[in-house]
Amino acid sequence: MKRSRANKAERTRRFIIEKAAPIFNKKGIAGTSMSDLTRATGLTKGSIYGNFKDKDDVAISVFKYNVDNLISYITREIEKKNSYIDKLLAIPDAYRKLYKTMIAYGGCPILNTAAEADDTHQKLCKMAAEAIETMRKTIIYLAESGKKAGELDPGTDTGKMAELIICLIEGGTFLSKTTGKESYMINALVQIEGLIQSAVL
Amino acid sequence: MKRSRANKAERTRRFIIEKAAPIFNKKGIAGTSMSDLTRATGLTKGSIYGNFKDKDDVAISVFKYNVDNLISYITREIEKKNSYIDKLLAIPDAYRKLYKTMIAYGGCPILNTAAEADDTHQKLCKMAAEAIETMRKTIIYLAESGKKAGELDPGTDTGKMAELIICLIEGGTFLSKTTGKESYMINALVQIEGLIQSAVL
Repeated sequence: MKRSRANKAERTRRFIIEKAAPIFNKKGIAGTSMSDLTRATGLTKGSIYGNFKDKDDVAISVFKYNVDNLISYITREIEKKNSYIDKLLAIPDAYRKLYKTMIAYGGCPILNTAAEADDTHQKLCKMAAEAIETMRKTIIYLAESGKKAGELDPGTDTGKMAELIICLIEGGTFLSKTTGKESYMINALVQIEGLIQSAVL
Repeated sequence: MKRSRANKAERTRRFIIEKAAPIFNKKGIAGTSMSDLTRATGLTKGSIYGNFKDKDDVAISVFKYNVDNLISYITREIEKKNSYIDKLLAIPDAYRKLYKTMIAYGGCPILNTAAEADDTHQKLCKMAAEAIETMRKTIIYLAESGKKAGELDPGTDTGKMAELIICLIEGGTFLSKTTGKESYMINALVQIEGLIQSAVL
């Protein structure tokens, strides 16, 4: 009985998070009102507050949900490949499949959240920085493993490679979203592929 | 008499814009309240509304002010140089001098405004896209002039070069601001210099 109530609460939280996610990503945290959330979920304020402490608590759960989805997707694409070079190339390839959906969703949730939160919501800013750090460490790990496996030039600066890949992904998504020109993202992805290929032994 | 009144109104508007600029850049438009503006300016709500239609009107004037300052600064740095290669290199060099101040100011005003405004404030979104387009056209003009002057490889794809430079600048500023790591911006600027140098004949 207790368990089924916990499951129901968990399902309601999940439902609120899923409905709130695109609204927060498009309108920002300060720009999203409790009325936006009641309208999107069809629930009362009381129900939302019964599941979350306040609007910021919903925003934090939404951010976790968005980042988990993004990282799981990229991880699955990486795991499909065998060589470390192919695993690295799976990253721009994942964004090539993903970026149109991401733009329609309001842009990159990490960038949107961090651009708003960096001077206002310390916890969200820290979470955005952690998501970026996870990406950076994953790229470095794949590139260092590629060196050990004799696939990548041992002289490759993997830290620099990782930071440039993330700069190009975030810059490309942001610029394609803002200008409506896909070429920003496509040029960025081609450049990332070039960076990886140029490190191949 | 009429003229001096106009000048005084212009000075008050300018004063409000200068005081409001860092607040909007740090807290966002939705996150900035009229009380933030009265506190920062020491003026009453009535005085602010006497000079601006509403908060969005202040936000639009602040955005123009930020972009004008940024573009004037970069233009002056470009004009100091003689060859087209040096003019192109003046762009990453300007950001090398500027980015710490920009980060302390709350990050790139174009990115901050566009990330918030893209789905909510159409006019500001259009202005952000126009600022990016001005940068893109300036880079293309300098690179095409460099080709004609025999400084740059005539095979250079100047549109692609321009978009990559802007991706790296925006990505680098955003990531250094969010993570606190300067290396994102420094790696991005070195990469931009490499892109320009690799097009030199």
